[in-house]
Amino acid sequence: MGGVGRVYIVGAGPGDPELITVKGLRLLGNADVVLHDRLVAPELLRRVKPGAVVVDVGKRPGGAGPTQAEINEMLLKYAQLYDTVVRLHGGDPLVFGRGFEECEYLAARGVSCEFVPGVTSGFAAPARFYIPPVVRGTASSVALTTGREDPSKGLRQVDFRKLAAAVDTIVVYMGASSAAEIASELIAGGLPRDTPVAVVKSAYFPDEELRLLTLGELGPVPNPSIIVVGKVVERGVRLWETARRLS
Amino acid sequence: MGGVGRVYIVGAGPGDPELITVKGLRLLGNADVVLHDRLVAPELLRRVKPGAVVVDVGKRPGGAGPTQAEINEMLLKYAQLYDTVVRLHGGDPLVFGRGFEECEYLAARGVSCEFVPGVTSGFAAPARFYIPPVVRGTASSVALTTGREDPSKGLRQVDFRKLAAAVDTIVVYMGASSAAEIASELIAGGLPRDTPVAVVKSAYFPDEELRLLTLGELGPVPNPSIIVVGKVVERGVRLWETARRLS
Repeated sequence: MGGVGRVYIVGAGPGDPELITVKGLRLLGNADVVLHDRLVAPELLRRVKPGAVVVDVGKRPGGAGPTQAEINEMLLKYAQLYDTVVRLHGGDPLVFGRGFEECEYLAARGVSCEFVPGVTSGFAAPARFYIPPVVRGTASSVALTTGREDPSKGLRQVDFRKLAAAVDTIVVYMGASSAAEIASELIAGGLPRDTPVAVVKSAYFPDEELRLLTLGELGPVPNPSIIVVGKVVERGVRLWETARRLS
Repeated sequence: MGGVGRVYIVGAGPGDPELITVKGLRLLGNADVVLHDRLVAPELLRRVKPGAVVVDVGKRPGGAGPTQAEINEMLLKYAQLYDTVVRLHGGDPLVFGRGFEECEYLAARGVSCEFVPGVTSGFAAPARFYIPPVVRGTASSVALTTGREDPSKGLRQVDFRKLAAAVDTIVVYMGASSAAEIASELIAGGLPRDTPVAVVKSAYFPDEELRLLTLGELGPVPNPSIIVVGKVVERGVRLWETARRLS
């Protein structure tokens, strides 16, 4: 082995096993160890080489599963034992994943890490239903944010009232429990109650589902979902319906 | 042939030919016709099957190259002649590309189209230098926007002053000519002049380059570049420097 291994922090994309990058799949096939999120396509895990160590480090909805501190420690230990460690994140490892913090932890302890971007669910999940984040004539800016609070902070981090006035499209990751509260804030910030909303659940997985509603109707949503707020929803879904009739 | 073909509107990713998705590469290898942007990795175009029609429809910096109307028409004509047409966009076809409008044009004329997402440059270019769009403790929201005006509108579409107050990180696509103006607006909106800025030019291409500066220093930038504004730049570059020393 000789020396310490290298950790690749890889995005698996949004659920369809074919939406991983070519580089991500190559690294997965070469890895001695794979530590993966719960929400990666199961087919991908069958692409690891025989004898590779595969560990599901995903967090369960109830909160079970290893803590981030435990995942960091596992990455470090495996990097000390093996040449090539892949940390496989759903979506992109830097977009509301913990990839950055994992790399910081490793680098501070002398282990090198590299990011391999993935297709982020915030764009790919709506794209499944032809909803674009931006499109000429309808939206020229999009904000991505999370509905989950940072427990280390006392106050709400994202000011949804200001966001309502500043961008045309808002995409919320992990908004399962806070969707209703976010909707009230966006309305308080000036968005009409009839602003179209798409809730995309489990995109590219067998149980995928699109719910269309208005901002005034937005309540709790299933987990995992991506929430899209803005006029792009209407224009996208119109195209999706036409495209469906044609295929 | 029998009937009309299908058009796949595919994201090539940010420049590294290995950052296309597995699905995108598979479709590229099956395509009868490929219409591609200027900014896709040249290696990808060598993956088309023998005899396939390959057309560069990219816009040149000076403005030469086919218009969007001409590209739409070409897509339609090729779909009437061949089974599988791939329209290959740099990055993601729906994130400041024209993929949506192409699909709208085709669908209105009875040709079915499908989106295959790609890794968007707005996240992948900064990731090349370990800069995350969001990360716990530093940034919990990011806005993506474009520096290029929509010529069909008289007024500026994006209100950068409001954006300055609403999100933690701002990523600007196609800001080459308007960077200085955007910087003034962001400062007028309340961002300190010493807010860190990264200008990532041609990420994953041989001439890639990172420039670090402050918002107060931001002037014209090379084309193509991704501009990132926010505290994430500082934290990302610190990690990048450590990681470089280790590898």
